Amino acid sequence: MTKANKRKIFNDPVYGFITIPFDFILDVIDHPWFQRLRRIKQLGMTHMVYPGALHTRFHHALGAMHLVNEAIEVIRSKGHPISPEEAEGVTLAILLHDIGHGPFSHALEHSIVSNIKHEQLSLMFMQALNKQFNGKLTLAIKIFSNTYKKKFLHQLVSGQLDMDRLDYLKRDSFYTGVSEGVVGSDRIIKMLHVYKDQLVVEEKGIYSIEKFIVARRLMYWQVYLHKTVLAAELMLVNILKRAKYLAEKNIQLFCTEALHQFLYHTYTYTDFKNNYNLLNDFAQLDDYDIMCSVKAWTTHKDFVLSKLCTDFLNRKLFKVELSPKHFDKNELLKLKKQVAAKHNLSLTDSSYFVLTETIENNAYNPENDKINLVFKNGSIIDITQASDNFNISAISKPVKKYVLAMVRI
Amino acid sequence: MTKANKRKIFNDPVYGFITIPFDFILDVIDHPWFQRLRRIKQLGMTHMVYPGALHTRFHHALGAMHLVNEAIEVIRSKGHPISPEEAEGVTLAILLHDIGHGPFSHALEHSIVSNIKHEQLSLMFMQALNKQFNGKLTLAIKIFSNTYKKKFLHQLVSGQLDMDRLDYLKRDSFYTGVSEGVVGSDRIIKMLHVYKDQLVVEEKGIYSIEKFIVARRLMYWQVYLHKTVLAAELMLVNILKRAKYLAEKNIQLFCTEALHQFLYHTYTYTDFKNNYNLLNDFAQLDDYDIMCSVKAWTTHKDFVLSKLCTDFLNRKLFKVELSPKHFDKNELLKLKKQVAAKHNLSLTDSSYFVLTETIENNAYNPENDKINLVFKNGSIIDITQASDNFNISAISKPVKKYVLAMVRI
Amino acid sequence: MTKANKRKIFNDPVYGFITIPFDFILDVIDHPWFQRLRRIKQLGMTHMVYPGALHTRFHHALGAMHLVNEAIEVIRSKGHPISPEEAEGVTLAILLHDIGHGPFSHALEHSIVSNIKHEQLSLMFMQALNKQFNGKLTLAIKIFSNTYKKKFLHQLVSGQLDMDRLDYLKRDSFYTGVSEGVVGSDRIIKMLHVYKDQLVVEEKGIYSIEKFIVARRLMYWQVYLHKTVLAAELMLVNILKRAKYLAEKNIQLFCTEALHQFLYHTYTYTDFKNNYNLLNDFAQLDDYDIMCSVKAWTTHKDFVLSKLCTDFLNRKLFKVELSPKHFDKNELLKLKKQVAAKHNLSLTDSSYFVLTETIENNAYNPENDKINLVFKNGSIIDITQASDNFNISAISKPVKKYVLAMVRI
Amino acid sequence: MTKANKRKIFNDPVYGFITIPFDFILDVIDHPWFQRLRRIKQLGMTHMVYPGALHTRFHHALGAMHLVNEAIEVIRSKGHPISPEEAEGVTLAILLHDIGHGPFSHALEHSIVSNIKHEQLSLMFMQALNKQFNGKLTLAIKIFSNTYKKKFLHQLVSGQLDMDRLDYLKRDSFYTGVSEGVVGSDRIIKMLHVYKDQLVVEEKGIYSIEKFIVARRLMYWQVYLHKTVLAAELMLVNILKRAKYLAEKNIQLFCTEALHQFLYHTYTYTDFKNNYNLLNDFAQLDDYDIMCSVKAWTTHKDFVLSKLCTDFLNRKLFKVELSPKHFDKNELLKLKKQVAAKHNLSLTDSSYFVLTETIENNAYNPENDKINLVFKNGSIIDITQASDNFNISAISKPVKKYVLAMVRI
Repeated sequence: MTKANKRKIFNDPVYGFITIPFDFILDVIDHPWFQRLRRIKQLGMTHMVYPGALHTRFHHALGAMHLVNEAIEVIRSKGHPISPEEAEGVTLAILLHDIGHGPFSHALEHSIVSNIKHEQLSLMFMQALNKQFNGKLTLAIKIFSNTYKKKFLHQLVSGQLDMDRLDYLKRDSFYTGVSEGVVGSDRIIKMLHVYKDQLVVEEKGIYSIEKFIVARRLMYWQVYLHKTVLAAELMLVNILKRAKYLAEKNIQLFCTEALHQFLYHTYTYTDFKNNYNLLNDFAQLDDYDIMCSVKAWTTHKDFVLSKLCTDFLNRKLFKVELSPKHFDKNELLKLKKQVAAKHNLSLTDSSYFVLTETIENNAYNPENDKINLVFKNGSIIDITQASDNFNISAISKPVKKYVLAMVRI
Repeated sequence: MTKANKRKIFNDPVYGFITIPFDFILDVIDHPWFQRLRRIKQLGMTHMVYPGALHTRFHHALGAMHLVNEAIEVIRSKGHPISPEEAEGVTLAILLHDIGHGPFSHALEHSIVSNIKHEQLSLMFMQALNKQFNGKLTLAIKIFSNTYKKKFLHQLVSGQLDMDRLDYLKRDSFYTGVSEGVVGSDRIIKMLHVYKDQLVVEEKGIYSIEKFIVARRLMYWQVYLHKTVLAAELMLVNILKRAKYLAEKNIQLFCTEALHQFLYHTYTYTDFKNNYNLLNDFAQLDDYDIMCSVKAWTTHKDFVLSKLCTDFLNRKLFKVELSPKHFDKNELLKLKKQVAAKHNLSLTDSSYFVLTETIENNAYNPENDKINLVFKNGSIIDITQASDNFNISAISKPVKKYVLAMVRI
Repeated sequence: MTKANKRKIFNDPVYGFITIPFDFILDVIDHPWFQRLRRIKQLGMTHMVYPGALHTRFHHALGAMHLVNEAIEVIRSKGHPISPEEAEGVTLAILLHDIGHGPFSHALEHSIVSNIKHEQLSLMFMQALNKQFNGKLTLAIKIFSNTYKKKFLHQLVSGQLDMDRLDYLKRDSFYTGVSEGVVGSDRIIKMLHVYKDQLVVEEKGIYSIEKFIVARRLMYWQVYLHKTVLAAELMLVNILKRAKYLAEKNIQLFCTEALHQFLYHTYTYTDFKNNYNLLNDFAQLDDYDIMCSVKAWTTHKDFVLSKLCTDFLNRKLFKVELSPKHFDKNELLKLKKQVAAKHNLSLTDSSYFVLTETIENNAYNPENDKINLVFKNGSIIDITQASDNFNISAISKPVKKYVLAMVRI
Repeated sequence: MTKANKRKIFNDPVYGFITIPFDFILDVIDHPWFQRLRRIKQLGMTHMVYPGALHTRFHHALGAMHLVNEAIEVIRSKGHPISPEEAEGVTLAILLHDIGHGPFSHALEHSIVSNIKHEQLSLMFMQALNKQFNGKLTLAIKIFSNTYKKKFLHQLVSGQLDMDRLDYLKRDSFYTGVSEGVVGSDRIIKMLHVYKDQLVVEEKGIYSIEKFIVARRLMYWQVYLHKTVLAAELMLVNILKRAKYLAEKNIQLFCTEALHQFLYHTYTYTDFKNNYNLLNDFAQLDDYDIMCSVKAWTTHKDFVLSKLCTDFLNRKLFKVELSPKHFDKNELLKLKKQVAAKHNLSLTDSSYFVLTETIENNAYNPENDKINLVFKNGSIIDITQASDNFNISAISKPVKKYVLAMVRI
């Protein structure tokens, strides 16, 4: 009976069950660096608007792995061999594609760890794991960094229609309850094909792809760039910026050890490259470090920090306005002065409470990478060209909006 | 315990439960003319492609009634009074909006009952029921025919965003299994509002509406105008045309009594208006009359009829090609000649096996009637203007395609 | 691109997609005898109570096939080889296990075709197909009739936990909307194992099995033996009995050709065995023959027949009472006399309007065949013994009820 | 447009949308004490086994509120008036029924706050809120503590079939992905009735109730008492016990302020009663305090603490065995000695790594409170008596199991 008992299955409200396809994958999942993803929410503070959105990067990584395995089966069944080694490689690549994310990644990258991207960290983590596991991730790293000969394997991990994207759209819409964002991942995967080493979609999948892009756009406006979600995120960015500012002035702050290190020092990409321990230190950080510090800071003597933290924690969030054009600088200055006056702040400090940002919703950007359809006659056409009206090419134009966020007065 | 037991509940896989809101509604549902809708499939022969698409006009009518009742509750909660009489009226209007449909409506209207529309028949049925029920449907008829003062009630029954459309899109996508067509009816209804006696949608519902229109477009191409669905429908049209042709030549055909009457006579709108019995005769027709005659005709001595019926029944369906432009007449003639030669037919008769058609997918046509959004400042804007890019106005352009359908040779 | 286009996919609201695993399977599906299952509803007249219950034996057969293929994959992954030939065999066996069903099977077997079981007909159909397809179904027939060496393959097709049962429970609960009957087929299949050539369930599946049995019991009382469903079924039985009775007296009845043959003649098992054409004639019968005749008979001059048919069609169904003990004979006689008096009938004829029946709900009967659990230590225990309380063995006791059905007076 | 914009709607993956029925409810939800429930997971460490089980007490409270409002509507429609004040009262009572829960409630109550129950704290919170809101919760408190005249309102909040239970079963099965635990809350609520001031279920709901009890039992074994869930919970209990032990010895521990207070002091029910601030201090505690301290303690110099925390965090969980009878004391001692030897521990300290527990699964206990069915003739019968076999009364017998949990050696 042994074999049955070793094959680990994860329950997943989204797909039902997720099976681990290779024994080695389980070793990687069991690694503390990967387990840590259980403590990092996929959507940061989005749960302040959508209370169900508490799913983690751990679950998303498993979900994306599940879709890659379905895609492998479909592609094989259409006559494109994928060896067991390649299957394991692409599975590991997708599983680890987000391992470099810190807690509240967006906020963190705009405050504390501002000069290094999560993709770079993911690669470093994979390389470090490769050492620990005696080279077993070599092929995965090649696929992840697109240096492996079969390019379509990389496209499954990273591209306009990768399994990462399919899973997060489906998972995010599931947990937020925004059912309109649900993507027909089943159908899209069944329509995948490989043509001249490119991942393509069969002709009859055109409407599914169109719907996928529209759903993605909808998720952007309704979830990722939702006004109140932006408000919470911008507050957290400012909280961390202020904490960093105070740390630089050597003012004492309650901190977990892991957060202390990154608050009181500033590390560069090179520091990480040269110092394996630093990576491990970074791997100690998770949502708990941030939130428990924010909670402690509600009583800090610095007014800016404690006010931001208290409002954030009790969900007295910034008011957010969106506009198609730049906000007027004089208007902004007036608002800052109002806030400064009310709370007895310097004009500089009032910037923590009145700020502007730019957001962009780019549901499908054919300039980077295309979604290609393959027709029965063998021709390959980009979805914007193939669709029977201007719809997709219309959506392909990115939409930029200007954000004004400020404390409620 | 009586009250609880009178309030009838229908199980519905789509919404869970459908409650009958007024006792009189149940009397109408129990009427044989309405019960007959249990025997008329909503999507005709679509189940030949999507085997689950067997749902009936009966279930759809109950579903649309359910949504109207949810919409009434939402609109009332936003400060727009709807009296119990008006609520019953609009409920009856939506319940009966499709009662004029015959079996395989599209096919029937293109062959046997070609000069009268189902909307006209629906109105006649409602008027006849009104007599039988002593005027209890007077208000419903006013709402249905848009002569009642509160125009928004009519818009719930018939308009760009009526509850008919919301239910059929949701129901059709549910039963076909084309999950991408699923519409967020819940959210859309929650966003309904009334402004200057117009049904409008709150500003924040904009992406849901956009998604609704895209889903509708997708359902057109993927289901309603699916090649193989068209093939089956066009075959049935030709079967009924041929049967009518033979009947006009007084050739004997196996027939149910109800079908016999409409096959061997041709009635006009005026005939129906002047003859109450004719309406009742029409109400005897359902899917069983058509299909059981088609089955019998598989052995008819007329080759055209029996060949069409046999192929249809055993799912040897026409081959269908779609094109953005007219098919060449000479090409068509050549094909007809081929078929005529193969089956030893006259060129005229070969037209039953080679034919062309035009189809149009008009997901949202603002020329007829608009979907209006209301903004916080009180302004009203058509969705094509309000959307943040060209997307909706792109979709609003109807797409025409040309169809060539022919027997497989 | 050819390979991708040949692999046919069916949409299914229950599982999403059903893939045809072998090319030959598609040839069998395309056969008119199998296509006919598209016109036979799985649950007969149940849709009179649950309007969504219109799914066909065609769709169920595809669904059961889908589950068998999932089971094959699971069993293989646990180290039990199943050859491609065996996989195709068991797939064909499950696909065709119900092909012997006539329309409204239960009603038909209690009236017109009363001396031959559908399992016998299924086998005959399979044998006839085997001839037509040059022996390609030989292995399937062995598995179906349990003469193949690997017994567990037969158990997948027919047993206490076969894929037939899993699919119909899931499908019936889905389409009726009785969501409580939904079975965790995914989980049960993942827990399947083979031990000493027996299909068994892993220990940790115990609660899923318990739930499966409870769900089955619930479906019996709530759907299969629902009072109003019984009423409709018993009326149809009596309609067909009366028609048969009139036919035997050589009274003319509107009839489709196929129905005529079985109404005006009585065939035995041997007749079928000796006459291949008879099987083909039987294959012409479907729901349309029955319902369209019932509709015609509403105006037949025989009062018993026309009254039954009219009431049936317009859903004026029998009143049904259930009781744990026999109904009193004198009471019954009194009721029959009442009905006879009211409608001016002989006492004999009144039996068409007042009748009794016995029903039994046997959710799990370990006397026939057991559901066995396999424990980590390798021991095998029947579910009734393994469950941690009396629950399952309690359910295993069949429940008998007595039915009184009669016309409303 | 104002009215529409004030009526707040929450997205919920389980029910779609949750509407706030009264304006005052939103004030209570906005209170920091209630917002804190956003940071307390409903199922503690269950997500270590079911990664989706991250839903919070906040979401559950909203869900239970939603069900209460559906129940109110059903009960009213059956002729039992419930005034708007009563509706608001019962809504507030269910919303706040769990507000007394601390983080990882089970673990906390077995370690740090061991002498006071969460129900008592809930009541104190409600009383304190009542003061803050000038008596607006008086009726809610009466209903919650069952001193209001209409007893059935209390039963909606707390009883064998309360809305709390319905929501948590449904929500827990949804987020764990254990779809077999899903309860037909819709149907059960539709079957609710009030008879002699008792909440009862209509006769025809009997199978739904049976299914509800079986689903509850399944959730106990499969989720709440799942071996690995027990392992994680028992480790957390021991971590907190050890921390408390060290605190009592005045050894320094990294701590959030809120946790520090409850770790370094021991409070009684009377302390809480007499000190309003203590309640507010308790309200500062949430999952973040516990987890972030556990993380810090992984490097504490106390071996017992750091070993437990490190293993816990990296998911090296205790091995758990279940048995129907007591574990042998000598056997236990032997195991403790093994552990003591391996890690160089005193025998006393080895008890942190080898321990026993008792668990009980009592799906339905008619001794406390019954689920009553009302029959058409007006009689009321307990479900165990009404069910047509021994099933329910079998399930009603509680099942006790003995647990042995220990570190892996």
